[in-house]
Amino acid sequence: MTDERTIFGKILDGDIPCHKVYEDEHTLAFLDVGPVSQGHTLVIPKERVANLHELSDVSSSAIGRVLPRLCRALMKATGANAYNILQNNGTTAHQVVMHVHFHIIPKFDEQGLGIGWNAGSLDPDQAKQLLGSLHEALARDS
Amino acid sequence: MTDERTIFGKILDGDIPCHKVYEDEHTLAFLDVGPVSQGHTLVIPKERVANLHELSDVSSSAIGRVLPRLCRALMKATGANAYNILQNNGTTAHQVVMHVHFHIIPKFDEQGLGIGWNAGSLDPDQAKQLLGSLHEALARDS
Repeated sequence: MTDERTIFGKILDGDIPCHKVYEDEHTLAFLDVGPVSQGHTLVIPKERVANLHELSDVSSSAIGRVLPRLCRALMKATGANAYNILQNNGTTAHQVVMHVHFHIIPKFDEQGLGIGWNAGSLDPDQAKQLLGSLHEALARDS
Repeated sequence: MTDERTIFGKILDGDIPCHKVYEDEHTLAFLDVGPVSQGHTLVIPKERVANLHELSDVSSSAIGRVLPRLCRALMKATGANAYNILQNNGTTAHQVVMHVHFHIIPKFDEQGLGIGWNAGSLDPDQAKQLLGSLHEALARDS
């Protein structure tokens, strides 16, 4: 039999150790073992789904709630005064582990998340069409 | 008198229009007028604070709760099957508007968020020291 658990599932099961930062009923936070900067922390739901759009309201609310307090603790512990939150969904969007995870990445002078930002300009006609589709999708998503 | 509101504050006040995607008691979502990809959406709390670590539990839970449904709607409306969530805090971390905002950025072949990722390896002794500081900071943050 193949083990279909992700590495984060194994951490949740206690089969792989982690540097635990925080835990509550719905979430677990631990240090990233491949940090982009000092204090780089991962926050995951205990619910085992790959992507954010699959996550229940209970889990997603719980992660939202805990992020600010984790950021406060990271600022105190590392001295960082800037940081990025990143959450990737899909291989083409740089997701590696297929269990929802939020990165908290403190930003220092030379260390931290690099961001590539090739922005365009919103076309009003496209915006109108897109909003129609979005409002319809949201209305059907109860 | 100077107007100390951010552009998002002015949107919340109705003094600047937006392409509204979604609104509830605590949150507002609208299309980014400088999109990095088709469907690029911003989600903001109605609470007017600059950074995530300043946000109340109520606001941060509400944003967490609404993210998955907005992602589902964006996937349906744009056909994207991958996307990134990004939230920047501090000028050095690429924050421009000083009101908390989460980017939802659909990822297509040529369009989307660029990520620079210069990862190191977590030193066990540094991890232990960092966890001590983090646990103390979290215990004091009630």
